[in-house]
Amino acid sequence: MLKQLRVYLAGPEVFLPNALDMGARKRAVCAEFGLDGVFPLDGGLELDGLEPRRQGRAIYQTNVDLIRSCDLLIANLTPFRGVSADVGTAFELGFMAALGKPVLGYSNSSQSLRARLECHYDGLIHQRRDGQLAGPDDLAIEDFDMADNLMLHGALPEGGLFLHLAELGEELTDLTAFRQAVKAAASFSDW
Amino acid sequence: MLKQLRVYLAGPEVFLPNALDMGARKRAVCAEFGLDGVFPLDGGLELDGLEPRRQGRAIYQTNVDLIRSCDLLIANLTPFRGVSADVGTAFELGFMAALGKPVLGYSNSSQSLRARLECHYDGLIHQRRDGQLAGPDDLAIEDFDMADNLMLHGALPEGGLFLHLAELGEELTDLTAFRQAVKAAASFSDW
Repeated sequence: MLKQLRVYLAGPEVFLPNALDMGARKRAVCAEFGLDGVFPLDGGLELDGLEPRRQGRAIYQTNVDLIRSCDLLIANLTPFRGVSADVGTAFELGFMAALGKPVLGYSNSSQSLRARLECHYDGLIHQRRDGQLAGPDDLAIEDFDMADNLMLHGALPEGGLFLHLAELGEELTDLTAFRQAVKAAASFSDW
Repeated sequence: MLKQLRVYLAGPEVFLPNALDMGARKRAVCAEFGLDGVFPLDGGLELDGLEPRRQGRAIYQTNVDLIRSCDLLIANLTPFRGVSADVGTAFELGFMAALGKPVLGYSNSSQSLRARLECHYDGLIHQRRDGQLAGPDDLAIEDFDMADNLMLHGALPEGGLFLHLAELGEELTDLTAFRQAVKAAASFSDW
């Protein structure tokens, strides 16, 4: 019998008050598909007595060690406190991409980044002299038919991003799209 | 004579209308210190005729190839459209960190992430039952004496993050802190 594939579960649910429950729910979905889910808070860290900066560094080190120990990564790219994904998740996605291991993503927003930016700018968008779509601040609006910044979406294989519009208030807890991503990840076992 | 070190210049200035000028300015600072600056738009890509999604993927591939070709990376972690750094920059920082090459960062905000989040939440922060500081949405506020998410700040060596409060409107163009980072990067040449 083959060893279960380890899947790093990157995402901003670590900021939820019920983060550990969410981790358990996500691991349970992984187990259904024969995968071993690894949640960022699974490092079993002892932080007592450390100064805040050292606590942060210890968590960082634990997380990158966990990522290196995994066979693939599923990133929750649901917009977090703004138009784009959580930056910690973006970092972890980049980290795993550089390791050359498979990465998949999902988002509980079904809109494109362009659509969210139009909303962010209250529709006040224009075409710059250089032909680029931009907000009133003249910052370019990415318009590549992608769900987020091209470095995030571009890291995922075609068909490797799962979108589902969650109900209001369930953006960080709805696991519909996550389940689809896990199902796709399970097919990597067949490789 | 040693080959010049190549420094990947990650940052959201690619979204500025004068992105190419900014790239030239940043490369000039690198050259002053004997380094070869590599700007994300330096890939010399031909995108004409490609569908938007394929354009985005082509830019992604060019950027990760450029990152792999570099010896170190300097990330502009100035908050972008929100409380945190640009997600594309976060991805690239994670990518280089996974390659095990030196990474440095700078920000034109001199505040901690915690301070920016307090502002984001209009000061309406509270302590959750689990002891964690949180916003009115009950999402945890990171409080690790760090300039951004711990995965970003944690990736940088101690002393490897340079902060400078830029004037209003110059957040994405002020190169004071960038220059300090380049100076530090140049010392890697002595390795």
